[in-house]
This record gives sequence, C-alpha cells and structure tokens, in this order.
Amino acid sequence: MQIAMIGLGRMGRNMAARLLRNGHDVVAYNRTFEKTEALAIEEGGFAARSLEEVVEHLKPPRTVWLMLPAGGVVDQHVDQFLGLLQEGDILVDGGNSNFHDDKPRHDKAAEKGVHYLDAGVSGGVWGLEEGFCMMLGGPRKAFEHVEPAIKTMAPDKGYYYCGAKPGSGHFVKMVHNGIEYAIMQAYAEGFNILEKSDFREELDYAEICEMWNHGSVIRSWLLELTGRAFKEDPGLKDIAAWVDDSGEGRWTVQQAVDTATPAPVIALALMERFRSRDESSFADRILAAQRNQFGGHAMKHKD
Amino acid sequence: MQIAMIGLGRMGRNMAARLLRNGHDVVAYNRTFEKTEALAIEEGGFAARSLEEVVEHLKPPRTVWLMLPAGGVVDQHVDQFLGLLQEGDILVDGGNSNFHDDKPRHDKAAEKGVHYLDAGVSGGVWGLEEGFCMMLGGPRKAFEHVEPAIKTMAPDKGYYYCGAKPGSGHFVKMVHNGIEYAIMQAYAEGFNILEKSDFREELDYAEICEMWNHGSVIRSWLLELTGRAFKEDPGLKDIAAWVDDSGEGRWTVQQAVDTATPAPVIALALMERFRSRDESSFADRILAAQRNQFGGHAMKHKD
Amino acid sequence: MQIAMIGLGRMGRNMAARLLRNGHDVVAYNRTFEKTEALAIEEGGFAARSLEEVVEHLKPPRTVWLMLPAGGVVDQHVDQFLGLLQEGDILVDGGNSNFHDDKPRHDKAAEKGVHYLDAGVSGGVWGLEEGFCMMLGGPRKAFEHVEPAIKTMAPDKGYYYCGAKPGSGHFVKMVHNGIEYAIMQAYAEGFNILEKSDFREELDYAEICEMWNHGSVIRSWLLELTGRAFKEDPGLKDIAAWVDDSGEGRWTVQQAVDTATPAPVIALALMERFRSRDESSFADRILAAQRNQFGGHAMKHKD
Amino acid sequence: MQIAMIGLGRMGRNMAARLLRNGHDVVAYNRTFEKTEALAIEEGGFAARSLEEVVEHLKPPRTVWLMLPAGGVVDQHVDQFLGLLQEGDILVDGGNSNFHDDKPRHDKAAEKGVHYLDAGVSGGVWGLEEGFCMMLGGPRKAFEHVEPAIKTMAPDKGYYYCGAKPGSGHFVKMVHNGIEYAIMQAYAEGFNILEKSDFREELDYAEICEMWNHGSVIRSWLLELTGRAFKEDPGLKDIAAWVDDSGEGRWTVQQAVDTATPAPVIALALMERFRSRDESSFADRILAAQRNQFGGHAMKHKD
Repeated sequence: MQIAMIGLGRMGRNMAARLLRNGHDVVAYNRTFEKTEALAIEEGGFAARSLEEVVEHLKPPRTVWLMLPAGGVVDQHVDQFLGLLQEGDILVDGGNSNFHDDKPRHDKAAEKGVHYLDAGVSGGVWGLEEGFCMMLGGPRKAFEHVEPAIKTMAPDKGYYYCGAKPGSGHFVKMVHNGIEYAIMQAYAEGFNILEKSDFREELDYAEICEMWNHGSVIRSWLLELTGRAFKEDPGLKDIAAWVDDSGEGRWTVQQAVDTATPAPVIALALMERFRSRDESSFADRILAAQRNQFGGHAMKHKD
Repeated sequence: MQIAMIGLGRMGRNMAARLLRNGHDVVAYNRTFEKTEALAIEEGGFAARSLEEVVEHLKPPRTVWLMLPAGGVVDQHVDQFLGLLQEGDILVDGGNSNFHDDKPRHDKAAEKGVHYLDAGVSGGVWGLEEGFCMMLGGPRKAFEHVEPAIKTMAPDKGYYYCGAKPGSGHFVKMVHNGIEYAIMQAYAEGFNILEKSDFREELDYAEICEMWNHGSVIRSWLLELTGRAFKEDPGLKDIAAWVDDSGEGRWTVQQAVDTATPAPVIALALMERFRSRDESSFADRILAAQRNQFGGHAMKHKD
Repeated sequence: MQIAMIGLGRMGRNMAARLLRNGHDVVAYNRTFEKTEALAIEEGGFAARSLEEVVEHLKPPRTVWLMLPAGGVVDQHVDQFLGLLQEGDILVDGGNSNFHDDKPRHDKAAEKGVHYLDAGVSGGVWGLEEGFCMMLGGPRKAFEHVEPAIKTMAPDKGYYYCGAKPGSGHFVKMVHNGIEYAIMQAYAEGFNILEKSDFREELDYAEICEMWNHGSVIRSWLLELTGRAFKEDPGLKDIAAWVDDSGEGRWTVQQAVDTATPAPVIALALMERFRSRDESSFADRILAAQRNQFGGHAMKHKD
Repeated sequence: MQIAMIGLGRMGRNMAARLLRNGHDVVAYNRTFEKTEALAIEEGGFAARSLEEVVEHLKPPRTVWLMLPAGGVVDQHVDQFLGLLQEGDILVDGGNSNFHDDKPRHDKAAEKGVHYLDAGVSGGVWGLEEGFCMMLGGPRKAFEHVEPAIKTMAPDKGYYYCGAKPGSGHFVKMVHNGIEYAIMQAYAEGFNILEKSDFREELDYAEICEMWNHGSVIRSWLLELTGRAFKEDPGLKDIAAWVDDSGEGRWTVQQAVDTATPAPVIALALMERFRSRDESSFADRILAAQRNQFGGHAMKHKD
C-alpha cells in the first residue's frame, strides 16, 4: 500500500525500510533532507522535501504515519497535516506520545473528517531485523485500512488493535514500558546479589544468562540482551551507574496513582532510576545527619 | 550412565523419565513404592524398595541424586546415604535447599570421601518436555562425572557449573527465583493497570500477551504462561487472590540483607505475596484508625 | 482583625472559633445557613447569608479566607469573589488545593489588583484546641496583613511563610502529607510485625505506644494517636482494613515523578493504601495463575 | 538499689550516671579501667577491676547489667558471669542483642538458677538528660526486683515489661528501630522533594521543622533532631551521602520475612541505606547496558 513516513530517526527510518523491502510504496519525509535522500538511495521510495509535497504525492485516501519525538513537535505536525489532508485520510501518530494527548488530537482530526490512529511501537534497534511490535488505537476502519502496512512492519502476530478509544494503543504501549522497567530492575538486582556474594569469583554472568535462557522460568529476550552486554564487557567496567528514563515509566506510575492501582514494583523501578542520577543524595545526607543527632553516630564527611 | 534418583515427585519422576528415555540406567526409589513401580512400568529402570537396595544395585563409583522436598528430610537422607556409600561415590542434592545447608553436608560427605554436589533445578511441570535448567556446585571432578546425566536432563545449553564452593548451585538457583518473583509481579502490576483503566473493555489480555511475545522488549516465557492462563480463564474469575511462596524468594531477600545489597523490587515482590495472604490486614486497620484519630475521617466498619 | 471565613466544615468552623475566642472580628459564611447561624450563636461573629453580604460587611482592605473542599468549588468561589472584591483586598485559599492550581488563581486575582495567598493547613480535629499548623505562600505584604489572624489560628511558632511564589504554601503542606503517609505506614508495619510474632500475647499495644512516647527515638504525635486508637479498641477489631487517601499523597508522588526525585517510601505508603482497597486483587490472581502454569502449584479457588 | 553496670561506653556510662545521681549503689566495670575510674571520680560508685571483684562486691541477690556491644562479647560475659553468680542472682543484657540469642542465654542461666532479663534500650546521646526508654523481657519476678533501677534510668512512663518470653524486650526494641528507619526515610524523602522543587530557594528547612513541630500531624522528636541538624549545617554540605545501619533494621526485615508479614516501607528504608553505600552500583550499570542493547540508548561512560 501507499504510506507516508514522517520522521526518519532510528525507528522511522527502519520502519520505512521494512515497508520498502516488502513492496510498499513509501513517501518519506524528514526535517533534514539528507536522511530522506539517504533512505531513498539505500531502500527506495519517494523523497519528499516538504509536507505539502508528501500530501500531493499520496493518492486519497492518504495514510500519513508520524514517527517523531514525543512532545510539541507531534502536535505541530498534526496541525500542519490537518491543514493539508482531506476527509477520509488517515493520520497515525506512532511516536512515544502520552495517551492523554490522543483524545484532543483525535477530536481535532475528526472535525476535518480525518481518521486519527495512535500507535505504540516497540522494537528499538532490533526492529529492522525482527519487526516492530505494534499496538494500535482509534477507528477500526482506519486501522483495517493501514493493516497491510502494519503487518509488514510488525513480526508475525506482533501487532494488536487495542480498541476504538483514542489513546488505547499508546496506553497499552505505556504499560508495556512500565513492565519493562520492573523486569530490567529484577535482573539487575539479581545479578547484583550474585556480584556481592562469596560465589562471584567462579561465576561468569554471560554464561549464566545463556544457561537461564535455556529452560529456566526466567528466560526472556531482556535476559538475552543482558547476556550480550556481559559478553561485550564482562564486569560492565566501562559503564557509568547512571540510568535515564524516557517518559513512559513515569506515565505508568502516574496512571497507577490516578486510578489508585497498586504498582509497587513498577514505581520502585522508576525510583531506582531517579536514584541512580541523584548524586550525593540530599535524602541520604539527611539520614546521616539524623543518626548523628540522636545516636552520636559518626558521619562521613566529604573530602 | 548409571544413576539413582531418590524421590519421585513431580520433578524427580520426570527427571528420571528423561534419563530413561535417553538410554541411561536409572535406579529409582520413592518412599511409597507405588510411585517407584509406576515409573518402572511406564519408563523402565530398576525399582528399588530401600536405600540399601539402591546402593547395592549401583556399581561404584555410585551417583545418587536426591530429589526431595527441602528441609529435614534431605539431611536425613544425606546421613543415611553417607552410612551406605563408599569413598569416591557421588551424592547430589537436587532439591530446593537453602545454600547455607550445603557446606555442612559437603563437609560431612568429604569426611567419608564422598563427593557432594548441590544442584538447583528449574523447570516445573514443563521440564519433562523441555528439559530442566540446572545449576551445579561442588567438586568439579564429581560434576564432570555426572555431566552426561545432567546433559540429558537439561535442555541444550541449559546447565551451568557454578563453581567448587559448596552451595553455589543452590545459590544461583535461589537468585533465579528471586528474579522470577519480581518479573511475575511486574507483569501482574501491568495487567492490573490495564484492568483498572478506561480501555479495559476492548482489551483481550491473552491476545496482548501473544502480541507482546512477538517482537516486544518484554517477551518472555513467563509472559507466554500468563497468556496461557488468560486463555484458560480470561477474567481469572475462578482464582483466589492468594499467592504462596516457596522459600527461595525469602532466602534471596535475606541474602540481600545479609550482604547489604539493595534489592527493592525483589523484596517488594515478596512482600506483595505476604500481603495477598494478610486478610483484614492489621497494618491497614491501624492506618484507618490513625486517620480517624487525627482527621476525624470515617472508618469503614466490619459488617 | 476583621476576616471572613468562607466554609464552615470541620476545619473552617474551628478556625473561625479560634479567631472569635481571641477577639478577632469574623464574618462567617457557609452554603447552608444553619451552620453559619450555629457558629454565630455558639461563638459570635457576623453570620452572612451571601457572598455579597460578606463583602459588604468587610471594611477594605478586606481579607477573605476560603476553607472549602478542594476542587472546582474553590475556583468557583475565587471567581465569584474576584467579581466582588476591590483592588488591595486579600483572598486566601486555605483548602487542600493542588499547588499547581495556585498560579492561575494568583494571576487572575493580580489582574484585579487582589492579593492571592495560598495556605496549607494541618491540624484536623485537634486544631480547635491545639491550633492549626499553617504554611503560607504568596505576596509577603498580604501575608503580613493577615498574619495577626494566622498567629491566632496557629499554635505558638506553628506557622511559616513559604515564599512569594504562588503555591508554595500548598506545596509545603502537600509534602507534609506525603511524609505523614509514610510515617503512618511505618508504625502500622511495626505493630503488624509485633502482632504476627510469638510475643504478641503478652503485649499491650496502647502501653507500648505510651512507653515509646516517653524517651524513645520514635516518639511523635502520630504515635500518641495510635496509642489512643489502641486504647479505644485494643485489637482494632471493629475497623475494616480499608484506607482512604485524600489527594496530597498522590500529588506528592506525582511531584517526585515530575522532578525525578526518588521517594520510594512515600510512594509505597500510597500504594499500600490503594492495595487496601483492591479487593480480590487482579494482580495477585495473575501471580497465582502464573505459579500454577509453570509449577503446577495449586491455586486457591474462590468459594 | 545495688546494681552492677558492665560496659561503660556511651550508653552504659550514662545509665550508671543516672543511677548514681539518684541514689543507687553502682558497681561499675569496664574492660579498660580508665573509664571505670573516671566514672567513679565524676559520679561516684565502686570501680571494680575484674568481674570477680564485681560479684564479690554485690550483696545477694545480685543484679548485673551488661551494656556491651552486641555479638560474641555478650555471650562471653554471660558465660563468665554464670561461672561467678549464684542461684537467685539476676543477669540483664541491655545491649543491642538479636532477640533470637536470648532464649539460649536464658536457658543457660536458668540451669544455674540465675534469672536472665533482656532489655532493649533506646535513647542515644540524649539518654543521660532525658532518660533511656526501656523494654524488658524475662521472668516477671526478676523484672520487679530490678524495677527501681529501671525506673530511675528511664523517663517517667518510659519503660515497659514485654513479657516472660526470653527475647521479648529485645524484640520490641528491634521493631522500634525498624519503625525508626522508615520514619527517618520518610522525612528524608520529603525534604528531598522540597529540595528538588522550584520553591526551594525561599525555604528554610530548619524553620520548616520548627513550624511542623508546632501543631502539624507529623510533629515528632526525630523532626526536632532534623531541624537541629539543618540549623547546624543548613545545606548539609559537609556530610557524605553514606548511611550506616546497626543491625536491628536488618533483623526487623528478616523477622518480617520469617513471619510472612508485609513490611514494604521498613524494608525499603533499609534498602535505601544499602543503596547509599553501593557506589557505582552494579545494578544500575546493568540497567544502562540493557537500555543500550535494546534501544541504542547512549550510556554514560566512566571518565
């Protein structure tokens, strides 16, 4: 099918490539034209220089897939495309948007007769090769229209229509990421317990990952990746203990709070990431000062 | 190779079956002879009626694999076998023993010249079909002697020699279970957030598991099993919110505490299980009473 | 000084009473006039029947203190009073408002030349007797104008000017409540550990509170209240294990998330309250189902 | 009454001083005689040079109070005194012993007819002035015999007889400390949220402590001490973010685990202390490496 891919970062570029390699007709656009051109040269497709050119090049009903960094830039593009698209066209936001943002976008689009889909996309750097796992929300008819492209971008069985409510795709993807934070933390704590034990000297963590991934209850893709990391740098000696977060984990905790849903482990996994960036923790200095006050316990002083 | 399997519960019976189906010579023993006999009829092998008969039937150097419920019964059998085995024989504890118990057992065995191995075994009800993931600790020579049997019981690449220190196999298995608790809790919280959201009515959790397992970052075997559970009973309506624990999770937290290793997510996953069994929580009643005391907030009263 | 108290619920009524008992001139207003009348009869002051009457009765520069339930009703009253007040008047929101709501209110008021103060008030049912602890934010001049009334409502040393930034008073109060949740949970867990121990039969919790409150490190007012609750109902047998939350705890966790500040204990205390209301927890049923899937562990079934 | 105080560290010395200042007859002993002598000079009492001299100097039934660092040294002294004391004498362990250690000590003492009491003592550096809060376990008759001394050492109403079961005093003290960890963490997190907010520049934390301690729900002695610490060093700039733990917190978590009692907040407060000492956290490096593996997210490298 014909589809426009707007934004050719790590994700968008590889999604476009999967589409092109499987016979779809891709109209590509990126803010800097070099990336658009590079894609056209390497994988084919039409390299548009402007949003107008994108829309002109598409036959109605048009499908435009936004693959932009979350935030204001998505709203900006939604507005621009709503000024260019026609009734019956489809606009998909495949970025990491907060699901709360989808309802207003959907409503704005609906006023113009444009169908708005929200798409949560997982896959990272492995997506090109293995396919991108996709969660879709919005009008079912629009989903079905885009389904051939989704089927190509996703691995076999790797996509799901989450319902007609705007935001349902981003919502399921958000929860996916919340779970991801906690699973990562689970493995990290486990290996830390191994590392701090008397047994550590005889243990090879990459081999333990390999073994656990063959028949144990905790086998998973994240464990495979963990094993890969240990293989590349067995003691992880070159890596700083500083862990970023990209938004969905925070939104998951806020959703848990908003709906009074207990999510202790997901919340803690997020807090641990904050903690990793909280150098010379003020909280810990307070604890040390309190202990000194009541017990006369020595405090360590900064050197 | 020739090997004795002592204890024919869910795990031991299936481990013996895998050995027999792959040409090993198994001497089986179970406290109630019916199970021993059933195994011999269904899978072959020699059905021993006593520990003495087990030992008589084995050619030196003998290998005896204990697959008993953790606790006193293991020590009892270790003592009994140490009275029957000879120098150079091998005794393996494949049960869910606490790793702290292995050192004294090893030392007792060593006095008699018997080699003691500790084996952590993962696999549950799927082990017969898929193989049992195995973590071994103890003298390397003894491990190498038993390796042909281990290779047969485990899936390809699914076993690991954790080192010569007594307890290292049980230790790595224990940490595996600690991680397992937290991963299970991660998924449980995620689906609970879905369940408590406005999107729940259009979501089919079994299909979400299936989709996430095809290309998403959180794909895993536990997620497959979760999907299987949702397929069998979509709302889990027939299941009580009561979660048992089998020991290794507690030991993992104790080890974290003993070695001052932060393991918030594993600790919380364990606490959540305790909480599931803490009906009419005294802690929560205290909170309700406190709120009433300072704020005049209404308390719910028991009916 | 002269001051209007709008909203005569548990808090507002008692704050007005403290003002009246100490010689201030209070113009009282409540949606249902019965409460206003009752206050006038019991404590004195002027009973206004409408907001217009409130404003007419006050001499400029007027001070109007809103003591309303958080939410839309506050904004409604802010708008109504901004239509009635004059340049130089002061409007105080003493309710449990989210600090994010203060900036827009402040700006609206400033347009009219009205000074907006936000006041976090702690004290609950004990405030009448002991005074209400108060945290104030907004223009310093306005604060200083109202200070005589604040001094009267608060206990000695029990108020603090948190700064000119709109919302600073509600913000400090919000954090206060977050801390409160975690301290309550700390005591609740401690007594639960006593309750689940072999020592419980000889322990009298009310007396333990009394003893800990005389010389121990954990002495506090919340512990006094806890002791009082135990005295009234030693086993807390009549209280349901169901714990409400009133908003500030959630906002504190959201603030922690928004500013990437680790707050594990406060977050957990909130989650525990959610958990207390999550009957037949879906999360726990998932855990039970998972255990059954991989280990064949028996599930409890609902009766 | 006559009582021997064995061990004149921070606690023992001040407990002896309180006894002497209130007319009790104290036989003091310390491993290094200088401290014993200093006490005798400053406060009075008899300075014993050996355990034998202690016992000789006491009139039967003798009361010997051990105030030694927890661990082997206590058992050593228990054994030595049991060799010297006579039937009907009383031996008290007032150190921070694990309650599990009291039963064997009690039994050993009982064989000799010596009454063993376990005493949990709280108070730290403030005990001399304010009294030591005391929790006692063991034979009631023995408790009543020592009560006059306890009454003197404790503040008014500040002691409690926890029951005849050996260890009950240390047990209640242990739970006290677990609660203490969580309360300290609660305040620390709260101030950290203030510190990381846009309001921080106008906030004076020492004054906030002072204000909260006058009428707010979270007023407590620990908050007083926190205020004192902020007064001494407003930004806590001279203190390292490194928090020690002294054992009871760990034992409380282990007890929670042993009795399947959910104690998430206490457990987390302990974990946070471990985390404060876990420089360049291996767990966090694993998380960073995992993110890099699946998402190509940049890792910070050590410089």
